[in-house]
Amino acid sequence: MKNTTNHERRNFLVKTGAVASTVAVAPAALATAGSAVLPVIRHSVFFWLKNPGNQADRDALIAGLKTLGAIETVKGIQIGVPASTEKRDVVDNSFDVSEMLLFDSVEGQNSYQSHPVHLAFVKNCEHLWRKVVVYDSIAV
Amino acid sequence: MKNTTNHERRNFLVKTGAVASTVAVAPAALATAGSAVLPVIRHSVFFWLKNPGNQADRDALIAGLKTLGAIETVKGIQIGVPASTEKRDVVDNSFDVSEMLLFDSVEGQNSYQSHPVHLAFVKNCEHLWRKVVVYDSIAV
Repeated sequence: MKNTTNHERRNFLVKTGAVASTVAVAPAALATAGSAVLPVIRHSVFFWLKNPGNQADRDALIAGLKTLGAIETVKGIQIGVPASTEKRDVVDNSFDVSEMLLFDSVEGQNSYQSHPVHLAFVKNCEHLWRKVVVYDSIAV
Repeated sequence: MKNTTNHERRNFLVKTGAVASTVAVAPAALATAGSAVLPVIRHSVFFWLKNPGNQADRDALIAGLKTLGAIETVKGIQIGVPASTEKRDVVDNSFDVSEMLLFDSVEGQNSYQSHPVHLAFVKNCEHLWRKVVVYDSIAV
């Protein structure tokens, strides 16, 4: 076990109190809890469609991405589209779809890559995008 | 309330059973729960240092980023560095530090931008990076 201070510990958390309103667990249990640690490996992927304005293509990609949540080593998943936050120089809102997967370990991420559900997704959906960028992080 | 199917619902979840080993709440409560929904606004930031090999600079940036978890509207935070996943063409592992913040709403993200703790972080740390890329997503 890494020796972490309370301050450090707080910094890869989801504040579960905040989640309580939309959560699938008893809010009372979460209110007691206060926070939950996120799985440490974060796989962030951003997709640019071949046909950016094509809603059917976007929906097909989103539907494909959602199948990835069934993979055993995927411990958390969020599929998104650009949010309407303020436009700033450093913000790249040109992507069409984003995906975040969380894993407990690098091995979990590696085995996901070769999982049949992931391979099927790539086969069925890769014609939809013209560009994809992946960033893999480990929590510190 | 949006009308979501169980399938959709599952797709922006953290599987809390998986989190139980490192979680700050009673594992029994989580085992019952099964899953928790992540806050819908995901603010993903990737930093490239001016001095990429400089450990002190990296640590200073990480320490600065960790202060952001104290901001009220920040509902989840994970600070990371590149993970040792397989090198593939689409993987950009050239960044030095990554940050993911979760918010309940676009308004929460906007108010974070002007929060004194965030402004202090920018003032104290912006000399450390040469490039920063931000992607803001909303869960679908």
